[in-house]
Amino acid sequence: MDHSPLRLKKQQERRLGAGHCWVYSNEVDAAATPLKGFEPGQPVDIISHQGKWLGSGYVNPHSLICARLVSRDRAHPLSGSLLVHRLKIALGLRQRLYPRPFYRLVFGESDGLPGLVVDRYGEVAVVQVTTAGMERMKGEIVQALEKVIRPRTVLFRNDTPVRETEGLERYVEMRGEPLGEWLEVEENSLSFRVPASEGQKTGWFFDQAGNRARLAPYVRGRRVLEVCSYVGAWGVTAATHGARVLSLDVSAPALRAVELNAQRNGVGDAVSTLRGDAFDALRELRAAGERYDVLMVDPPAFIKRRKDLKQGTLAYRRLNQLALQLLEREGVLITSSCSHHMSRDALLDVLQQAARHTGRQLQLLEQGHQAADHPVHPAIPETAYLKTFFLRVLPAF
Amino acid sequence: MDHSPLRLKKQQERRLGAGHCWVYSNEVDAAATPLKGFEPGQPVDIISHQGKWLGSGYVNPHSLICARLVSRDRAHPLSGSLLVHRLKIALGLRQRLYPRPFYRLVFGESDGLPGLVVDRYGEVAVVQVTTAGMERMKGEIVQALEKVIRPRTVLFRNDTPVRETEGLERYVEMRGEPLGEWLEVEENSLSFRVPASEGQKTGWFFDQAGNRARLAPYVRGRRVLEVCSYVGAWGVTAATHGARVLSLDVSAPALRAVELNAQRNGVGDAVSTLRGDAFDALRELRAAGERYDVLMVDPPAFIKRRKDLKQGTLAYRRLNQLALQLLEREGVLITSSCSHHMSRDALLDVLQQAARHTGRQLQLLEQGHQAADHPVHPAIPETAYLKTFFLRVLPAF
Repeated sequence: MDHSPLRLKKQQERRLGAGHCWVYSNEVDAAATPLKGFEPGQPVDIISHQGKWLGSGYVNPHSLICARLVSRDRAHPLSGSLLVHRLKIALGLRQRLYPRPFYRLVFGESDGLPGLVVDRYGEVAVVQVTTAGMERMKGEIVQALEKVIRPRTVLFRNDTPVRETEGLERYVEMRGEPLGEWLEVEENSLSFRVPASEGQKTGWFFDQAGNRARLAPYVRGRRVLEVCSYVGAWGVTAATHGARVLSLDVSAPALRAVELNAQRNGVGDAVSTLRGDAFDALRELRAAGERYDVLMVDPPAFIKRRKDLKQGTLAYRRLNQLALQLLEREGVLITSSCSHHMSRDALLDVLQQAARHTGRQLQLLEQGHQAADHPVHPAIPETAYLKTFFLRVLPAF
Repeated sequence: MDHSPLRLKKQQERRLGAGHCWVYSNEVDAAATPLKGFEPGQPVDIISHQGKWLGSGYVNPHSLICARLVSRDRAHPLSGSLLVHRLKIALGLRQRLYPRPFYRLVFGESDGLPGLVVDRYGEVAVVQVTTAGMERMKGEIVQALEKVIRPRTVLFRNDTPVRETEGLERYVEMRGEPLGEWLEVEENSLSFRVPASEGQKTGWFFDQAGNRARLAPYVRGRRVLEVCSYVGAWGVTAATHGARVLSLDVSAPALRAVELNAQRNGVGDAVSTLRGDAFDALRELRAAGERYDVLMVDPPAFIKRRKDLKQGTLAYRRLNQLALQLLEREGVLITSSCSHHMSRDALLDVLQQAARHTGRQLQLLEQGHQAADHPVHPAIPETAYLKTFFLRVLPAF
């Protein structure tokens, strides 16, 4: 069962010891185990400088995160049967929390399967593989999924840019019964359609489900603007609670999906759409004197890498300041950031600055996180990324 | 309308400028406006060193937080009519979010009323005044409450130790119709009784209502241990979702209330009680080989002041480690801290350390905060205090 060893430098085993599972390339003892001696994705035993076995995992000499620990049990390295075992543990959680099979089934490191994401759309499993080590297991992944959830179709959405950091190609591939244009998804008893191969990420943002479940009292009977609507998850949900909604997005296909999803849930008359860049469109609405009771702002990550921090923070500031200016007195701002590098405190600072600048007083009513099917690994801060704030906006005290 | 000025030292207006409302005694220009020249609670105009009017508020020469800004509108200093105005704004939020009149109506600084807390138990308003400036307004507070919510009874629970930092006496006082021994409260469609004059704080912990609303899928059909139960809010809620519950508390009257509340909600047979110190009792249960599917741990604040940080952190660590050891495989730990000085990240670190120490792997599923009737003031970090983590506990990956 033993693999080639990957030996760490002195005292570089601390992060793993605290429960993390990443090894950075500068932590490897390059004299003892040179990285260029490994193939991308090759299984390894990770060894401390003193020679202590820390766990087994896989390596990628081309990546800054050059290895990921998968198992601390010597008898059970990454294999088809470990995949089945971990999938079953992951499924146990989701089955307990979700009445219907629509959720993220595997959330990488947090479910003990670094490099693997599986979203479940009923009988369709949408898989995203982001490391060379997991790419090697593709056949076993399909087999394990067949054993544990028997999907009708497995769709690999291996077209995410992060694959490039591992030197992996980008592609979309289907196994099993062919899919039509749409994936169907249920959330909070509503039914949505998302584009199967062209949608953002795997198609649906399951991570916001719990936050959207809290919308009702904030939007009932209100005039709502949904900013960066994508397929209308927030807006259509609000409309089903009695809101009149304008959904804004830059993508025409996304807005067509909004219209479809509104009709599908019986609120076609309550939802209208506006195509445009979020910043430009908000400025125009402000200039036109439009005002809303509630703004829902859920933009794509403005800070994808740490070096984007300054510019991305400014973008959050500008977008939210525009949002504040479009609110009626005693309005509600529901605003999100999915950038891991934007901390919860930093986002709140940005909002408070925007509020002071525009003479508003904020009350932070609720704080949302990623849903329970995206568990946070307490030793891996990188697994926590989603922040959603529900704020009441008052004239300054 | 003008009051005596309180002048700040150079550049000490920044915190107020960012939206905070506290002035510390070392920030006052003692030469220009000596603190000992003021009476406790006296109204003041807060002036920057350059002479700019920053706002009106009240002062207390005996307190480290020697002044609190109440209004940034020169025409509207603290008065009966400002109280009515702010109460109405506060009520607007609660009426929108709560179907029934059971909530925190006023949460001090976050509702623009520093030093004042009002909890609403139907027709009973339970008031807590914690500053000399607000104590002076007692008559106006009662009048404003009568105008805005017409309570049958106003109960002043002015017996909290924090009053001593303001040199205020501790007492309980009733206005209006006399109360019986119990206050009644509804939460998440359940009905509870809490001791009116002898209960902790104002009697009920409204701040956990939203977190308790998430219990159902975690506890259904499970064996649950409630640690630091007080009157059984968590335990009885779990029992109504089909759990068998053991409620542990050190207080015999609290446990009698647990039994009452269990019967009141039709789950008298599903809830039993155990009297004892939390640490001792958990050790005994562990030694006896008892195991539970879910542990709910909601202790009083172990860190009341910053100087308690080290010892309090250790207490959270010990209590949660014991809790982990009492869990069945794939168990769930629902654990809280209401200590402002214990940050969310620090609590998660404590839990992760306890998990590593006992060979467990944690998945952080949900993160709860104080409910929306305890809004956080984004410029006043001290208004954020409650953390509740829902964790799944697995064997180490």
